[in-house]
Amino acid sequence: MRKLLVITAIAAAWMPLACARVINVADEGIVPGADVTLRLNLLMASIKDEADVTLIFPKGTYEFYPEDAQEIYRRVANHDNSLKRMGFPLFGCKNITIDGGGSTFMFHGRIVPFVVDGADGVTLKNFSIDWARAFHDELRVIESDENGKFAILEADPTRYPQTIERGRLRSIKYDWKDDMSACLVWDPKTRSPIINTQDYATGLSKHTATRAGDNRYRLEANFGKAAPPVGSVLISYGARPTSRLCPAIHLANSKDITVMNVTIYAAGGMGLIAERVENIHVDAMTVTSTQERLISTRADATHFLGCKGQIRVENCLFEHMLDDGINVHGAYVKIVEYLGNNTFLCEISHFQQWGITFAEAGDRVALLSSVNLQPFHQTTVIETRTLNEKRFLVTLADMPQDMPEGALAMENLSWYPDLVFRNNIIRENRARGLLVSTKGKVLIENNIIASQMHGILIEGDNNVWYESGGVEDVTIRNNTFVNVGFDGAERYPLYASPKLTGKQRQGDERYHRNITFANNTIRSFSGSLVFARSVSGLTIEDNSIEFSADYPEVTGFPAIDLSYCDTVSISGNKANGFGRSLIIRPCTHCTNVKIGDNNGFEGN
Amino acid sequence: MRKLLVITAIAAAWMPLACARVINVADEGIVPGADVTLRLNLLMASIKDEADVTLIFPKGTYEFYPEDAQEIYRRVANHDNSLKRMGFPLFGCKNITIDGGGSTFMFHGRIVPFVVDGADGVTLKNFSIDWARAFHDELRVIESDENGKFAILEADPTRYPQTIERGRLRSIKYDWKDDMSACLVWDPKTRSPIINTQDYATGLSKHTATRAGDNRYRLEANFGKAAPPVGSVLISYGARPTSRLCPAIHLANSKDITVMNVTIYAAGGMGLIAERVENIHVDAMTVTSTQERLISTRADATHFLGCKGQIRVENCLFEHMLDDGINVHGAYVKIVEYLGNNTFLCEISHFQQWGITFAEAGDRVALLSSVNLQPFHQTTVIETRTLNEKRFLVTLADMPQDMPEGALAMENLSWYPDLVFRNNIIRENRARGLLVSTKGKVLIENNIIASQMHGILIEGDNNVWYESGGVEDVTIRNNTFVNVGFDGAERYPLYASPKLTGKQRQGDERYHRNITFANNTIRSFSGSLVFARSVSGLTIEDNSIEFSADYPEVTGFPAIDLSYCDTVSISGNKANGFGRSLIIRPCTHCTNVKIGDNNGFEGN
Repeated sequence: MRKLLVITAIAAAWMPLACARVINVADEGIVPGADVTLRLNLLMASIKDEADVTLIFPKGTYEFYPEDAQEIYRRVANHDNSLKRMGFPLFGCKNITIDGGGSTFMFHGRIVPFVVDGADGVTLKNFSIDWARAFHDELRVIESDENGKFAILEADPTRYPQTIERGRLRSIKYDWKDDMSACLVWDPKTRSPIINTQDYATGLSKHTATRAGDNRYRLEANFGKAAPPVGSVLISYGARPTSRLCPAIHLANSKDITVMNVTIYAAGGMGLIAERVENIHVDAMTVTSTQERLISTRADATHFLGCKGQIRVENCLFEHMLDDGINVHGAYVKIVEYLGNNTFLCEISHFQQWGITFAEAGDRVALLSSVNLQPFHQTTVIETRTLNEKRFLVTLADMPQDMPEGALAMENLSWYPDLVFRNNIIRENRARGLLVSTKGKVLIENNIIASQMHGILIEGDNNVWYESGGVEDVTIRNNTFVNVGFDGAERYPLYASPKLTGKQRQGDERYHRNITFANNTIRSFSGSLVFARSVSGLTIEDNSIEFSADYPEVTGFPAIDLSYCDTVSISGNKANGFGRSLIIRPCTHCTNVKIGDNNGFEGN
Repeated sequence: MRKLLVITAIAAAWMPLACARVINVADEGIVPGADVTLRLNLLMASIKDEADVTLIFPKGTYEFYPEDAQEIYRRVANHDNSLKRMGFPLFGCKNITIDGGGSTFMFHGRIVPFVVDGADGVTLKNFSIDWARAFHDELRVIESDENGKFAILEADPTRYPQTIERGRLRSIKYDWKDDMSACLVWDPKTRSPIINTQDYATGLSKHTATRAGDNRYRLEANFGKAAPPVGSVLISYGARPTSRLCPAIHLANSKDITVMNVTIYAAGGMGLIAERVENIHVDAMTVTSTQERLISTRADATHFLGCKGQIRVENCLFEHMLDDGINVHGAYVKIVEYLGNNTFLCEISHFQQWGITFAEAGDRVALLSSVNLQPFHQTTVIETRTLNEKRFLVTLADMPQDMPEGALAMENLSWYPDLVFRNNIIRENRARGLLVSTKGKVLIENNIIASQMHGILIEGDNNVWYESGGVEDVTIRNNTFVNVGFDGAERYPLYASPKLTGKQRQGDERYHRNITFANNTIRSFSGSLVFARSVSGLTIEDNSIEFSADYPEVTGFPAIDLSYCDTVSISGNKANGFGRSLIIRPCTHCTNVKIGDNNGFEGN
């Protein structure tokens, strides 16, 4: 009996090893310095039904070209849907690890480096992703009109080649040309968006371009208050719907994904976009620009739509992106028509959500009034049926007795994740640090956040981005916020409010619940701390805010600005170095507000 | 025993009736006068696993809008691939009949009326297809510059609304705008392309547009020899790659399809495009324009790529198309690289063939030299693997011992159909009557052909359109050709020659075989009869050609012009009314040419 046990134990120990196969890609002819796309695609196809496989890349620079790449039509949330060619098509995999061994995966043209779909257990680690030619352009300002009517720009002809067609500046890319459209001014000294970015127009699709010397172009356009200053860099990042075709990593319809020690130097979209994935662990991922560029990714470093389980993001550096550090949310879809038989015709509201899987059978959903974003019925999905990228049918288990007047929407309650965001740095990017709209448990701690707009935006809206997820349990603690909000608008380390416009109204019920902002350290040129609307349960305690002279001082708006909130506690906060008391604005339409000692603050 | 037989007979007679289900769509709430797209799509989905179903439409006008239409990404041969919304998505059907009962199916916007894929036994009958707003524009010429520098055009604002953006004329469509690009001049008196069409430029993407009164636009452009004459109509039909998105009927990967008593008044592409279909019967199909329009379909009336079995087209009227009456062909694909293991990396050569299924396991293929289009090896496909729309891998059963120098190509020998084209009329269209490139048995008889370019073009090329199919057995008899070739170039009722350019050369071997052109009646202003190159076995007998004064007389090219042909018989042909002998040019590089009595001809 003892012998049998030993044999069983050996077998049990052996079995996983027998199943787990390690492939050194060099043995398959995949070597640095050449286009490996075809061979790698064939290797992936040959192992697609195997579980427990590790692909190891000997360290080197591997080239990926689109010509021989696997291709399918892909819908990608918050990107532009299209036929996508892929570097690593990871479809239906079970327990696969891609270990880059410190390699660089260098992409050329329109190709999505990693696509994970229908997979269970994928680890991506130890590599960097870059493109030979970035998706954006960096154009140095040589001459600037103080009336904002023209500028002369210089383009590095090897890295950002340009041409003029029909009087318009066009950027020459791998096998296409981009029209100038969305632009942003960057400061090469701070490697960040320029201070008071909002002073400069960002939409330059209307312009007249003429040559002004070797690689120099005179651009006549409406630049805003003034043309960008000499020495600044105009970042041109393309026109819809072709400016977000290639995220670096796309995760969809999968489970248990780990991304570890991955560096992303560029992307024609986001660094990592995940939709309908359960459990994602992002560890020590870096999004940054190369030495020769100011910009890293064309959009957010990371973005999660309709995920569940836990999203854990730790030990990451996200910088130089043209959009947010992280965004976690669901989607409000529009109810177009009730068709009878518990079935609604629904429509995806935002064009960059077209094609998402809103729900599947078994998901819990809420029906809401679009007027006040308050749910009036919860039930279970029996069946969904996609008509096209925009519209679909949902059949529900049961119907409410009455439906309110006005426009209606639906949100998916089953696919909201928990979030742990810890020990990360977000800095020197356009837009926000974090956007968080999820009903799951959220912990944001020990991060350094130095974003151009709000540090943390807890929003939710049904009129612009249609991002759903009034929060229920958010803890923000022990973070450091540095010079948040230098774009020139009224920005806060924490800004929590649903975006309501037109006929929508605050105050019927609270939209967000249970937000704690505690023990954070803020270095600030404006003294702003927290702005909140429609929050029930808001704790702002023991934060320390210090004056920073890194940017010109801004005054004129309160440190804490609350309305339509209840069960609020503000105490133990300290302000230092401002030479004035920071203002706690009287809380309007609020109930149960407790304000304790707050050193260096006044108000209420 | 006798009793049992009777019962069996009754059962046998009854069984098909029991299986065949007839659905009156009115019973499903599908009624004229409203958008029926969603209800019809749901009905199609509910019966998708049923065989032997007939859908009957009570006579009326049924509206189809794109908003709620079923959509998938579709590759369509000779069209522009894209997400397609569909009116009738007929996928995987077995023995389904759509009986329109004389109804009109009226489409709005970008939607493909009929998509048949993976089906076995489909009959479409008794309806017409139209669009509320055509895909092209008809712009009346009000003023014309004799130097060809400008014209003033008038647009009917309800049927062809226009706008000017950035100095360019744009056509306002359902939910998009088309840039002016490809154009053609039409004569409203003949309802045909204008005589000597080639005198007028067809590519007007470069132009400057200004307003010149109500619904009038001054267009400065390079119009060619002269601007189109006052009273003519400039047909503007869009820019690639969005000008061929919506054929009326797309058949793919299917078997035994019948299209009967169907009228097509418009299409954003071809009337009927079929690829990889076995056996198609088109009976009494009409492609024509409505009273209010000059143009019917944006491209060919019918087109067949890589089909097999029999294509039978009878009793049809095809008129007012912007391209050919019918085109039957295969595809030459380029061999990019030999990868070892009997496997080739191949590339689809023409962008409007991207995404076709070139071959599947079991198909016979030929390997050819691209230099002379002669095959050097035939074998069977073991496996194919699609990489992307352009490239794929083919593994062959065996390999040739040697491969010739220079570029190589491949053609599929298993998917060439027989063709019967009988009792049809093709007239008043741009381009050719018929294009035939198939190795199957071809019979073209009792048709009336009055096309703007060649009447029948038997071509094959590996450098422009990459249409394969050197013919092996073609009979053209008892047809009437009327005023063929009024576009201003040298055109023939029958033009049979591979298109060879650059380093390609005629004469290594014959490309076409066994073509008979006999007992045809030709009314002609030019006296042209047959032009041929590289044909082995060419019979031109007992044709009667009569002078026509319908267009100004054209002289200067031979009636019969042959080179690189062998086994040729020319006899019993009669020319009448030309006031001159028609020329049979001496056949160069020819062997075994027999010329008998040919009344009214001289030569050889």
